[in-house]
Amino acid sequence: MIEAARATWPEAEAAAARGALAMLPIGATEQHGPHLPLTTDTDLATGVARALAEATGAFLLPAIPYGDAWSCESFPGTISASPETLRALVTDIGRGVRRMGLPALITLNGHFGNREPVALAARTLLSEGLPVLHLDYPGLEALAARHCVSAPAAAGFYHADEVETAMMLALRPEAVRMDQARPDYPAFPPDFGTQPMQLREISASGVFGDPRPATAETGRDLIAGIVANCLPLVAAFRARHDL
Amino acid sequence: MIEAARATWPEAEAAAARGALAMLPIGATEQHGPHLPLTTDTDLATGVARALAEATGAFLLPAIPYGDAWSCESFPGTISASPETLRALVTDIGRGVRRMGLPALITLNGHFGNREPVALAARTLLSEGLPVLHLDYPGLEALAARHCVSAPAAAGFYHADEVETAMMLALRPEAVRMDQARPDYPAFPPDFGTQPMQLREISASGVFGDPRPATAETGRDLIAGIVANCLPLVAAFRARHDL
Amino acid sequence: MIEAARATWPEAEAAAARGALAMLPIGATEQHGPHLPLTTDTDLATGVARALAEATGAFLLPAIPYGDAWSCESFPGTISASPETLRALVTDIGRGVRRMGLPALITLNGHFGNREPVALAARTLLSEGLPVLHLDYPGLEALAARHCVSAPAAAGFYHADEVETAMMLALRPEAVRMDQARPDYPAFPPDFGTQPMQLREISASGVFGDPRPATAETGRDLIAGIVANCLPLVAAFRARHDL
Amino acid sequence: MIEAARATWPEAEAAAARGALAMLPIGATEQHGPHLPLTTDTDLATGVARALAEATGAFLLPAIPYGDAWSCESFPGTISASPETLRALVTDIGRGVRRMGLPALITLNGHFGNREPVALAARTLLSEGLPVLHLDYPGLEALAARHCVSAPAAAGFYHADEVETAMMLALRPEAVRMDQARPDYPAFPPDFGTQPMQLREISASGVFGDPRPATAETGRDLIAGIVANCLPLVAAFRARHDL
Amino acid sequence: MIEAARATWPEAEAAAARGALAMLPIGATEQHGPHLPLTTDTDLATGVARALAEATGAFLLPAIPYGDAWSCESFPGTISASPETLRALVTDIGRGVRRMGLPALITLNGHFGNREPVALAARTLLSEGLPVLHLDYPGLEALAARHCVSAPAAAGFYHADEVETAMMLALRPEAVRMDQARPDYPAFPPDFGTQPMQLREISASGVFGDPRPATAETGRDLIAGIVANCLPLVAAFRARHDL
Amino acid sequence: MIEAARATWPEAEAAAARGALAMLPIGATEQHGPHLPLTTDTDLATGVARALAEATGAFLLPAIPYGDAWSCESFPGTISASPETLRALVTDIGRGVRRMGLPALITLNGHFGNREPVALAARTLLSEGLPVLHLDYPGLEALAARHCVSAPAAAGFYHADEVETAMMLALRPEAVRMDQARPDYPAFPPDFGTQPMQLREISASGVFGDPRPATAETGRDLIAGIVANCLPLVAAFRARHDL
Repeated sequence: MIEAARATWPEAEAAAARGALAMLPIGATEQHGPHLPLTTDTDLATGVARALAEATGAFLLPAIPYGDAWSCESFPGTISASPETLRALVTDIGRGVRRMGLPALITLNGHFGNREPVALAARTLLSEGLPVLHLDYPGLEALAARHCVSAPAAAGFYHADEVETAMMLALRPEAVRMDQARPDYPAFPPDFGTQPMQLREISASGVFGDPRPATAETGRDLIAGIVANCLPLVAAFRARHDL
Repeated sequence: MIEAARATWPEAEAAAARGALAMLPIGATEQHGPHLPLTTDTDLATGVARALAEATGAFLLPAIPYGDAWSCESFPGTISASPETLRALVTDIGRGVRRMGLPALITLNGHFGNREPVALAARTLLSEGLPVLHLDYPGLEALAARHCVSAPAAAGFYHADEVETAMMLALRPEAVRMDQARPDYPAFPPDFGTQPMQLREISASGVFGDPRPATAETGRDLIAGIVANCLPLVAAFRARHDL
Repeated sequence: MIEAARATWPEAEAAAARGALAMLPIGATEQHGPHLPLTTDTDLATGVARALAEATGAFLLPAIPYGDAWSCESFPGTISASPETLRALVTDIGRGVRRMGLPALITLNGHFGNREPVALAARTLLSEGLPVLHLDYPGLEALAARHCVSAPAAAGFYHADEVETAMMLALRPEAVRMDQARPDYPAFPPDFGTQPMQLREISASGVFGDPRPATAETGRDLIAGIVANCLPLVAAFRARHDL
Repeated sequence: MIEAARATWPEAEAAAARGALAMLPIGATEQHGPHLPLTTDTDLATGVARALAEATGAFLLPAIPYGDAWSCESFPGTISASPETLRALVTDIGRGVRRMGLPALITLNGHFGNREPVALAARTLLSEGLPVLHLDYPGLEALAARHCVSAPAAAGFYHADEVETAMMLALRPEAVRMDQARPDYPAFPPDFGTQPMQLREISASGVFGDPRPATAETGRDLIAGIVANCLPLVAAFRARHDL
Repeated sequence: MIEAARATWPEAEAAAARGALAMLPIGATEQHGPHLPLTTDTDLATGVARALAEATGAFLLPAIPYGDAWSCESFPGTISASPETLRALVTDIGRGVRRMGLPALITLNGHFGNREPVALAARTLLSEGLPVLHLDYPGLEALAARHCVSAPAAAGFYHADEVETAMMLALRPEAVRMDQARPDYPAFPPDFGTQPMQLREISASGVFGDPRPATAETGRDLIAGIVANCLPLVAAFRARHDL
Repeated sequence: MIEAARATWPEAEAAAARGALAMLPIGATEQHGPHLPLTTDTDLATGVARALAEATGAFLLPAIPYGDAWSCESFPGTISASPETLRALVTDIGRGVRRMGLPALITLNGHFGNREPVALAARTLLSEGLPVLHLDYPGLEALAARHCVSAPAAAGFYHADEVETAMMLALRPEAVRMDQARPDYPAFPPDFGTQPMQLREISASGVFGDPRPATAETGRDLIAGIVANCLPLVAAFRARHDL
C-alpha cells in the first residue's frame, strides 16, 4: 500500500507497474452534532479506506472532503459540493487514475448523499474502460446491531450516533467531545423522503441516535468489520474484471 | 481561529456570528520529484492557510486536494481536476460559505494551474454577493531570493526545489526524502508557454531547481514571510468590503 | 380532476384558479420480460397517477415515457433518457407548472432509476418556489407481501414479477401475454449494487420473480393500496406548504 | 410494425434483427383553443407516426409529449420542454435506438417549435453513425388547400384550425368539443417573427383559423395524404443510407 | 450613429445616454462559390447593419464573423461556430449591451443557419429585460424578384447567386471575382430538408443560381430595399417596448 | 498567404493542400481611453496576425472581435464574451480548421483576459489532434523598452498607452484621436490582482501610461519586432509537430 500523502511519483509509477488499485475516500463537510467535527464523514471514509488499502495493497488517494450534504445545509458548518460537481470530480480523478496506468478504482464513500453522483461517475468511467467499485460501508447495519449498545434513530440511519462516534474515537479521538455528546431520537415526519427536506427541521441538535455509549473499541470493531466485508467485494471485483 | 477538522456546528455558528472569514486552501495531486510527496501543493497551501487563519481568526475549511495539474500529467501520480470542475467546486464552497453566514472567503492556493479557475469562481461569487480574496503566495519571489541559497530554475518558478522542499521540511518533515533530493536545472525550450506542453519533456526528474540546500528553518522563514505579506492584503480586503 | 389529454386551456386556467395540484407520471421504456410490454413502467405510473389525481382533484399531466434504464440497456427494447436529461425535463415541466399558476407538483414515478434525478429536480424547483412531492409507490413492500402469492426476487425488487404483472392486468390487460409469463429467480451476485452492472448478466429472461400467479384483482388491490398510502402524504404535503 | 406499448423485448430484438426502422413521434403540451385538448400535437404526431410505422414496418416508440411551446406559454395549460432538453432527449433516444441495433431513426414531429432542436439532434446522431430522417407533415400546405373548406390564418400556419381539428376528429373524436369550436382570424402584427412574442397577444382564443368545418373524413384524408407524402421520403432515406 | 470601430468609451457613454439602440451584424465564414470570399455573409450583414445604423442612429457593434455553417462544412474554407456557441456569444453580447445602458439590441443576420440560435438568445435576453429585434433581410424575396435578372435556385434560397454577388459588388467590389462567376442551378433532392445534408452533395461549385448578371447598382437597390423594409420593423419594435 | 476576407473556397482548398497554417487573431471590444476606439485590441491583433501570416504563408481567419474584458466592464463600450464562450468559439474554429485539412492553428491574441480561455482551447484541440500555437505579443516588454519614450504604467501592462497608440497609428491612424490623448499613471492598489476588480476604480480615464509620444513609426517598429519574435516560435512549432 502506498498513499499519495507519502508517495513520490516514482513510487506511483511502481504501484502502477505492479497493478495496484486506486483507493479514493469520499467524505463531506457537514454538521455532526455538538460533539463531532464537521469533517467526520471524511475522517471515517479515510480511516476505512486506509485500512482497506493496507489490506489490498492499493494506492490511497487524497480524500474528497466535500460532498452533497444538501439536507444538512440549514446547520452552519455544512458546506456542500453540488452533485454535479462531485460527479465531475470523481470522473476527473478516475480519468487521471486511468491515465497513470492503474487498472481500476475503488471509491470508499462515507456520506449518503454522495452515493448517486459516485455511481453515475462509475458508469461513465466504466464506459471509458476503467472499472469502478463503489463501496459505502458494506454490512454496516448488521455490524452496528452486533457491536453497538444503542439503537439507531431509524433503520440504516447513522449520523452523529454511537456508530459514527465510536469510529471517530477509534480514528481521531482528539477531535471528539464526549462531554458534549447527547442523545436525540427525533420523530421522522411521515412524509420523510418524499420531498426535499432539511434535517434540521427534524433534529435540532443534529444528532440521530445516542452517541454516549460509543467507545474506541466499538469503533475498531466496526471498522474491522467493514473492511472484512469489503474484502470479498474487492475479490469479486478483481475476478469480474481480471485485475 | 477554528478549523472544520476540529469544529462542531455550534462552533461554526459562533464563528459566523462573530464575522469570521472563511479560509480555503487549494492544492493539487501532482508529482514533485523523487523526494517530495504527491500532496506537496496541498500540504503547503494548508500549512500557509492555517498560519494565516491563526493570524486572522478565520474559519479554516478542508483543503481542496485536486487541482489542474495538466502539465504534469505525463508523470505517474499526477491526478487532476479539470479547470471546470475546480471552478465549480470553489463556487459551490463559496455558496456554502455565504449560506452559513460567513461574510467573505479567502482562498490560499498552492498550485499555479489553479489560479485562473479560482479567479473565475471569485468573479461569480462576488457577483452573487460574496467577496473573495484569492491569494497564492504573495511576495514569494522576493522571499525566495532572500532566504534561499539556490537559484530558481526560472524566474518565479518553484517546483520541487529549495523553496517547496524547505516549506515541506517545516510542515511535514516525515514526508520528505532528502536522500532522494537531487538538483535539476532543465533547459526550457524557447517556445515554452506558447503551447500545451508536458513538463516531463523538459525535466525528466520532475525537479526544477536544487532542493538539496533546503532546511526547515528556511521553510519556516518562507511561510512566515508569506503570511506577513498576506496580512496587509487581508486588511485591504476587509477595508474594501467593510468586513 | 382534469387531464391534459382531455382538457382545453380554459379548463387548465380554471384548474389553476381553484388551486389544483399538478400530477406528473414518470415511467421508462424498458424490457419487462417476455410477457410485458416495454412501456410497463409508464403504464403503471400513469395508472396510479390517474387514480391519485382522481382522489385529489389534481391536473394530470402527460407521462414522461423515458427514464434512466441504464441497467437494462443490454436488453433490446430498452431506451433510456440520461439522468441529466430526465432531471432537466422534470425541471422544465415544473417551471411550466409554476408559470401557469398551479401551486405545487406531485411526481409519481414508476421506475427505480428515476428516483435520484427526480429528487434533484425537486430540490431545484423548491428553491425556485415550487413545492414538489416525489412519490414512488409508497408502502409497496407491505402491500406486495399482503396481496401477492409469490415471493419477490429480492427485498423490495419488483420487475416483471407478480406485482407488476398484476398491476398491468388491472390497467392494460390487452398488453399482457400471460402465456409467455415464466418465473425467474436469479441469483444476485454478492457484489450487486457496488458497481455498474447490466441486469442481463443476472437474469437472462428479464424477469425477477414469478409473474404467473398475477391477477387483475391483485393488481387492483395493489393500486388501491398505493393510492391509499399516497393520500396522507399528499395531505402532509399540503399542510407543510399551505396548499 | 411493432410498437413499444405492446411489444416485449424479444419482439424488439426480432425487429432489430429484421432491420426495422425506429419511429419516434414528437409532440407538445400546448393550448389548442377552447375545443381541442392540450395534447393535440402529441396525438396528431402519434397518429401519423403509427400510420407510417404500419406502412413501413417500423418500430413505433413512445411519443415525446413535451416540446418547445414557448410562444404559447402565456396560455395556461402550455408546458414546455426547453429546446436544449428536447434536443438532449431526442439524442438520448437515438443512442438507445442505435445501441439496440436498429439501423436508423425517423422522427415524426407535430409541433413547429420542435423543428430546430430535432434537426440538431439529428446532426449529432448522424455524426455518431445513426441516420435520422426528421419529418414534420410533408406537403401539408397542398393537402390542406385540397381537402379543407376554410382558409388558414396565415400561409402554412395551422393551429387549432380546420386542419388540426379534422385530424383530431379522425384520431381522438372523444377529445374534441365541436360545440366550443369558433373561428379566429387574428391580425398578425407586421413585426411577427422578428422578436420573441407570445401568441396570446395575437389571438385571445388560441385559435388560428376556422375549426368549424372540420370533419373526421377530412382528417383521414389529411393523414392519408401526409403518409403518402412521407413514403417516398422514407424510400429516399433508405436508398441514401443503404437501409 | 456611432460604431465600435471608431468610437471611444466616452462616445459609447454618450450613445447610451441618448438611448441609442445596439446593432449587431452576424455573419459566417463559409464557402460562396469560386467568385466570392469566405466572409461574404459577414460582409453583407455588416453593410446592411451599417446602413440601418445610420438610418436609426444606432451603435454599430463589431460583427460576429462565425456562424453555424454546418451544411457547407464539406467545402474547405467553411469554419463554423456551433449553434450553442453562437447562441452563447449573442447572449453575452446582449448582456454587455444591457450592462452599458443601451435599451435594446437589433441583430442583423446574414446567414440562414444562424436564425434559430439568435432567436433563442433573444428569448433569454428578453427574459432578462433586454428587448431584441432579430432581423435577417426582411422582404428579400420580393426585392430579389423586383431587382434581379436571374431566377433563384429555389424559392427564398440565395447563396453565391445574383443577389449576394450584387450586394458584394456594392459593398466590397475588390473582393469579387466576376471572371470566376458561373451559374449553377443544381437539382435539389426530394428529401432535402428532412435530414442533415451537406450542400456539396447538391452543388459541386457551391453556387446556387446565376451570379453573372450581378451589378453594383442591383446590389445598392437590394440593400436600400432591405433597409427600407427594416425601418418600420424598428419603429414597431420601439413602439412595442417604449424605446 | 491568403485571407478569408479575400479567398474563395477553391483557394482555401489549395491552401490546405500546400499545408498552410491557420492564423486566428483574437481581440476584444473594450474601452481604450478617450483617444482609441473600442476595437483597438482586435485591430492590433489583426494587424500583427496579418503581418505574421504574410511572413509564414498562413491562412488568415476572421478575427474574433469579442474577448473576456470583464475588468473593464464598468466602462461603457466594453462588451465581453464570457471565458467559456470564448473558449468554445476557439475550439469550434480549431475543429473547422482541422476538418478542412489545415495542419495546425496559430492564435494571435491581443487581449490579456483571453489568454487562459485560449490556452484551454489549445489543450482540447491538441488532444483531438490539432497542434495550436497561442501567441500574444512575444517579447513586447523588451520591445517597448527599446522603442518607446514613455514608461509603462506597470511592468508588462500596456493599455491605451504609447505602445497601443503607436501600433494603432501604424495600422489604423484614421481611428486615433491624438488630440484626446492624455497620460494617466494611476496608482495600483496593493491588493491588485488578488480579487475581482474593475479597472475603472483605478483609472478614471481608462488610460494606463502616456499615449502622447506615440508615433506610427514606433508602432511599425513594435509590430515588426513582435513578428520577428514570433518567427522562431513558429519555426519551433513546426519542428515540434513536423509541420
